[in-house]
Amino acid sequence: MNHDVKNLNLASRGKDRILWADRSMPVLDKIRRRFEIEKPLKGVRIGACLHVTTETANLMRTLVAGGASAVLCASNPLSTQDDVAASLVEDFDVSVFAVNGEDNNTYYSHVNAVLDTKPVITMDDGADLVSMAHGKRRDVLEQIVAGTEETTTGVIRLKSMAKEGVLAYPIIAVNDAMTKHFFDNRYGTGQSTLDGIIRATNMLIAGSTVVVVGYGWCGKGFAMRAKGHGANVIVTEVDPVRALEALMDGFRVMVMAEAAKVGDLFVTFTGDKHVIRKEHFLAMKEGAVVANSGHFNVELELEGGLYDISTSRSKPRDFVEAFDLPNGRTVFVLAEGRLINLAAAEGHPAMVMDMSFANQALSVEWILLNRAGLSRKVHVIPEAIDRNIARIKLETMGCAIDTLTEEQVAYLSSWREGT
Amino acid sequence: MNHDVKNLNLASRGKDRILWADRSMPVLDKIRRRFEIEKPLKGVRIGACLHVTTETANLMRTLVAGGASAVLCASNPLSTQDDVAASLVEDFDVSVFAVNGEDNNTYYSHVNAVLDTKPVITMDDGADLVSMAHGKRRDVLEQIVAGTEETTTGVIRLKSMAKEGVLAYPIIAVNDAMTKHFFDNRYGTGQSTLDGIIRATNMLIAGSTVVVVGYGWCGKGFAMRAKGHGANVIVTEVDPVRALEALMDGFRVMVMAEAAKVGDLFVTFTGDKHVIRKEHFLAMKEGAVVANSGHFNVELELEGGLYDISTSRSKPRDFVEAFDLPNGRTVFVLAEGRLINLAAAEGHPAMVMDMSFANQALSVEWILLNRAGLSRKVHVIPEAIDRNIARIKLETMGCAIDTLTEEQVAYLSSWREGT
Amino acid sequence: MNHDVKNLNLASRGKDRILWADRSMPVLDKIRRRFEIEKPLKGVRIGACLHVTTETANLMRTLVAGGASAVLCASNPLSTQDDVAASLVEDFDVSVFAVNGEDNNTYYSHVNAVLDTKPVITMDDGADLVSMAHGKRRDVLEQIVAGTEETTTGVIRLKSMAKEGVLAYPIIAVNDAMTKHFFDNRYGTGQSTLDGIIRATNMLIAGSTVVVVGYGWCGKGFAMRAKGHGANVIVTEVDPVRALEALMDGFRVMVMAEAAKVGDLFVTFTGDKHVIRKEHFLAMKEGAVVANSGHFNVELELEGGLYDISTSRSKPRDFVEAFDLPNGRTVFVLAEGRLINLAAAEGHPAMVMDMSFANQALSVEWILLNRAGLSRKVHVIPEAIDRNIARIKLETMGCAIDTLTEEQVAYLSSWREGT
Amino acid sequence: MNHDVKNLNLASRGKDRILWADRSMPVLDKIRRRFEIEKPLKGVRIGACLHVTTETANLMRTLVAGGASAVLCASNPLSTQDDVAASLVEDFDVSVFAVNGEDNNTYYSHVNAVLDTKPVITMDDGADLVSMAHGKRRDVLEQIVAGTEETTTGVIRLKSMAKEGVLAYPIIAVNDAMTKHFFDNRYGTGQSTLDGIIRATNMLIAGSTVVVVGYGWCGKGFAMRAKGHGANVIVTEVDPVRALEALMDGFRVMVMAEAAKVGDLFVTFTGDKHVIRKEHFLAMKEGAVVANSGHFNVELELEGGLYDISTSRSKPRDFVEAFDLPNGRTVFVLAEGRLINLAAAEGHPAMVMDMSFANQALSVEWILLNRAGLSRKVHVIPEAIDRNIARIKLETMGCAIDTLTEEQVAYLSSWREGT
Repeated sequence: MNHDVKNLNLASRGKDRILWADRSMPVLDKIRRRFEIEKPLKGVRIGACLHVTTETANLMRTLVAGGASAVLCASNPLSTQDDVAASLVEDFDVSVFAVNGEDNNTYYSHVNAVLDTKPVITMDDGADLVSMAHGKRRDVLEQIVAGTEETTTGVIRLKSMAKEGVLAYPIIAVNDAMTKHFFDNRYGTGQSTLDGIIRATNMLIAGSTVVVVGYGWCGKGFAMRAKGHGANVIVTEVDPVRALEALMDGFRVMVMAEAAKVGDLFVTFTGDKHVIRKEHFLAMKEGAVVANSGHFNVELELEGGLYDISTSRSKPRDFVEAFDLPNGRTVFVLAEGRLINLAAAEGHPAMVMDMSFANQALSVEWILLNRAGLSRKVHVIPEAIDRNIARIKLETMGCAIDTLTEEQVAYLSSWREGT
Repeated sequence: MNHDVKNLNLASRGKDRILWADRSMPVLDKIRRRFEIEKPLKGVRIGACLHVTTETANLMRTLVAGGASAVLCASNPLSTQDDVAASLVEDFDVSVFAVNGEDNNTYYSHVNAVLDTKPVITMDDGADLVSMAHGKRRDVLEQIVAGTEETTTGVIRLKSMAKEGVLAYPIIAVNDAMTKHFFDNRYGTGQSTLDGIIRATNMLIAGSTVVVVGYGWCGKGFAMRAKGHGANVIVTEVDPVRALEALMDGFRVMVMAEAAKVGDLFVTFTGDKHVIRKEHFLAMKEGAVVANSGHFNVELELEGGLYDISTSRSKPRDFVEAFDLPNGRTVFVLAEGRLINLAAAEGHPAMVMDMSFANQALSVEWILLNRAGLSRKVHVIPEAIDRNIARIKLETMGCAIDTLTEEQVAYLSSWREGT
Repeated sequence: MNHDVKNLNLASRGKDRILWADRSMPVLDKIRRRFEIEKPLKGVRIGACLHVTTETANLMRTLVAGGASAVLCASNPLSTQDDVAASLVEDFDVSVFAVNGEDNNTYYSHVNAVLDTKPVITMDDGADLVSMAHGKRRDVLEQIVAGTEETTTGVIRLKSMAKEGVLAYPIIAVNDAMTKHFFDNRYGTGQSTLDGIIRATNMLIAGSTVVVVGYGWCGKGFAMRAKGHGANVIVTEVDPVRALEALMDGFRVMVMAEAAKVGDLFVTFTGDKHVIRKEHFLAMKEGAVVANSGHFNVELELEGGLYDISTSRSKPRDFVEAFDLPNGRTVFVLAEGRLINLAAAEGHPAMVMDMSFANQALSVEWILLNRAGLSRKVHVIPEAIDRNIARIKLETMGCAIDTLTEEQVAYLSSWREGT
Repeated sequence: MNHDVKNLNLASRGKDRILWADRSMPVLDKIRRRFEIEKPLKGVRIGACLHVTTETANLMRTLVAGGASAVLCASNPLSTQDDVAASLVEDFDVSVFAVNGEDNNTYYSHVNAVLDTKPVITMDDGADLVSMAHGKRRDVLEQIVAGTEETTTGVIRLKSMAKEGVLAYPIIAVNDAMTKHFFDNRYGTGQSTLDGIIRATNMLIAGSTVVVVGYGWCGKGFAMRAKGHGANVIVTEVDPVRALEALMDGFRVMVMAEAAKVGDLFVTFTGDKHVIRKEHFLAMKEGAVVANSGHFNVELELEGGLYDISTSRSKPRDFVEAFDLPNGRTVFVLAEGRLINLAAAEGHPAMVMDMSFANQALSVEWILLNRAGLSRKVHVIPEAIDRNIARIKLETMGCAIDTLTEEQVAYLSSWREGT
């Protein structure tokens, strides 16, 4: 099996960890058991560009169980768990091209390696396969039937492409499933981002002033957890409705130029570029800590920004880089501005990825069943599939809920019953 | 001016309270000032069926300032604030038909009195004007151009009508504006429902087990506040996605048959019928307290339910009715199951109704400008208006937010920039 | 029976409300049943100066059940519930001297009326009986055996007296019982203070900046509830340890001179004098609301302060007074600065007063059993009584807890068992 | 310099991490600067048995700066950070005997090595030096002037010894300083325990049922953080007052026999023995996770309990051990039941240890100044020192607080000013 991983000897540890995560992924497990029998993905080549984690491994296992052949590269140079990559190759028949800490050239060569296998379906986390296939690798476009996309960031890019009329094949926006973004983006990102920051710094969150940049689902999730750890939270936003929500949730809302002066910790969740800029770094207090939880590290103005203005750099601790500024102060950037939850911790807990990846697996099945009618746009997974995932998840958590009585069904569909 | 109110002598106190609320409604105030100059509603007859509160009074003032004539009846027999009704008639040129505690016959005669004025636009909170106009009063349909609806409950009914093809004129679902349901349904309902329950009972929320029936925006708002007061919250739901959200928000989720046995306080927020039924009342603990915060009191099975099975009834305290059950236990129902925040307290704070009613006022203006193209469906207010309300609200709260740089605008609309 | 109450015709409504509260006071009920049989207070004259509420009424009933004769005056001119006063006289054999809104002269004549009955035990909430007995009414000192005190404020005063050597009889600091101040001061004050403010103003707490003055048990309780309602909380303190706690609880801490500029709502909980002064009122934003939850309204500098600098005053709403300032701004003071939870709401919920008043009742019994050995100091109720109250409370809430195994008892008292 | 550490080559990394922690320990830094000048500990031999972390390293540096000679062993076999141990020897003149993962024999030989240096002051975290000196090493008792103790667990043991009259020298209970247990036990334990659990398992806390065993300061801190992460928290207790607090804080309270059936995660904070026993492990759900955050792992019945009843054991992941039970279920124990925050994470953040260790350093100074008058009991550090630490901490956090006016000082000490 073709692959490029760090060290196949890590496979045993990786397998243990994959099976540990599997214990918390009962929905995906249920799908895998059905796939094993029904083989709905028989003979389908799937190219995936995802964070190489234990949860992703269980998704890959599921695709393979359904009859697919799967090739995987990393969606970020720092997020690969080398033991997992090794185990996928060694134990689970997945071809993997990913090494933690790989440089940019290797990163893109791995993306190319995936495309070289002529996938019929692409599976993206940040739209790198799609971008490459629409750029330098237009040779692979022909055989691609459809793709899926996991992130808010990626969906924004893909909608731009669809709007410009350049999207060459249909995409399922897995991110937009309720059982994905309500949970993964909120509870997953919330916990894992805080986890990454604490592992990187061991800083006390209680009593610190935390600036949350962007109050979308991910920012909300993190603000909730930072508050739950005793932080005093400040939110910055560009959207007035979200800004109002942040205010009414009890947070201070201000422009970044003001927040920069008072924050102890800054974390970005915008999907946008340069939300913390040169002038903001210069306004920060001594010892301020800056991290990014968005898909790309462009959220921080590092190249052409902090890197240029700092007078010296050092690494006081793993995942922490110190930048001395001309004003005599030092600020710290975590994990080179790469997404902190995957770089310094293990990414989202399996419990929440269970639903996100159930959406991925069922999206692939759905694409195959509906390929004929799919336009070259960004599609949402049908609500029935979405709700079904929620229903299975509840069951596996041992939680029963009410069902509508006949009288209630009638009432809700009727407009005649009065006050 | 035609009217039916309790006592015009209450006007002075009502006016004071209306102006007190006005202090917290700066967005509506800004619209009123513009309306006074532009008179966009000149000559338009508006018939409104809304809770007669100080906040509604400020909406009526705004409509009149815009040149409209306004006639108002109550949207619930228990929610009318008689001093406000008096002041509207006496001080603000609004014709009001509403008396707190009016019986059902009077209630409907008041709805008829509004329709008798041949309104061009209807403004509903629970769809009673619309229902009457589509039922016994089809004579008024002809001259109605459009209507607005404030509540989730009403919107559900109206969508049923549109689906059945019987909706005779277009409706703007004010409820569906982000600046309405994100805030009014969540922070407004949350605070005012708890307020109503505490005023009615003076019970300690900390340490009590509170069952929240329905985890929509309103239920979420109340669950958040009950938790914030130290309650142990249980959620019941029929929707698996919402049930999962409740679980991940840290609440227990169970079927009502189980929750009934352990709750100290039950509050319904479903827009549905008979969500607490005979068998649930019989399962409750000694001293359980039951309230409804939904639009209609049908959420509790009282007629044909609790009223039938109880062996005796008494009123230990204003807004509290005790029901002795055959099993020897006593349960308490608040405010006859009518919406507790308006029956036992003053309804939502002005600060949040400011946005809801800004949507109402601007919806009316928008209807008049766009009447030609409006189909007989349920419409959402344009997002631009919605965001503008948020923007003004932020300004009046003294809160500035960031704006996208040119570079960011370009980045967000581009798909070419890579990792 | 000697008395001075508003109107005996209110007795029936008062009785209903007293019995409603009684449902939530099972510990006191249990004590009352034992007292009825054992009559441990037989023939003892008790003079009480307490807020005349439904909960106090149940305490009075318990004392009378134990064989005491009880005379009651109010501990604040605004906190008397006239229906409760009437019912105590009419239905429960308690002599009451209290009328809601009585002026200062009447207030003190009522305190004197209680002392005129030559009580053997005094029961205070703010130390007014003790102060009067040590001042103008030294004639009554001789027959007084001991007293009890309910509040932090009172205990501070009494400890000063003991320290100066002028305390003429022993006092039981009921406030210092764990089952009192952990619960009453925190959960009771927290809920009821917020309740009073919302009833007085109907203001939205979510999104508002709330300044909590003093972070003792009461301030902590209120900060918790304000946060739970979505406020952004600022704390001011003079004690560095408490200030640090507030910081680590996620609140901003600053000097009042700074907090004054940004608060929407200010509430005092200090037991101290003039914590919000002239200069602070002048620094406040347009529309700021100020309330006191401490025992005395001296916490706000009104006389000689706000009253002097304001250019005009008006009453826009019950319990709200507007003060126009020379700087063109208006600030609002609630309930004349009197303790807001009793003036504008009903005081602490019965559920929490149950424990506070169980301590009162058992303190009186304990005094009578231990009168011989009691020095003229401030005493704490024995821990065994305190824990017993907690134990009974848990039982009545249907809550079972673990007990130490023999092995555990041995382990905890041994130092020999190692790592 | 005498020592036994893992590898001196780790010193460089250890030093970087020690200096990183130092950035968040400004109070200790301020004391160190004064000590460097005043040398108050000149010539004093200090023997310390503490967790060998970056924060402890900064305490050792401070003692050495004050003129002391310091010898350090670990207070737990699993908590030593080997790079820190190396750096202390190599860079900071501290003699260290500690290797992560050392067996019990080595552990005690290291304790003995410290006592061999004939310390004048002992510094304990769990009372191991004191115990050994009172047991097999009574030879060292003579020259010991006094000791300090960091933990609740240790203080309980030492008070037992004092009560039995066997305590041979005075102890300062650093744990009982307000600036220690209010912060370290609550915010420190809260964050670091959750951190340890997440690092060990990567489990999702949101939506899980977390059983907190013991609601003292540490248990409260953890319950707060677990709730802040979206858990549904259950508390078990033996103390009725604490149980009531837990209830009113919104948690469920029940006996362990019931909690065992429903928990997903169990964490112990009791200082007691066998609080989770054989029968509880057998009652747990499939996949339950169990950890201890108390000083000793005896809180879990492992030897003679879980170890005996399990049919097989395996290690699915670092710090996680799986136990298969005869009932077919598997439960997981983290870090062999050793204190999870130090075994699987880095212990408390420096920000909070700053105050705890400032108390340690100032206690040593205070012992030397007051050695003459110290009885053989457990003493509390004087309140003035305690408050001073708080004051410095606030300053270093840039936080100013109010001071009492003269009028206020007079008011608070007077009992004559009335209503």
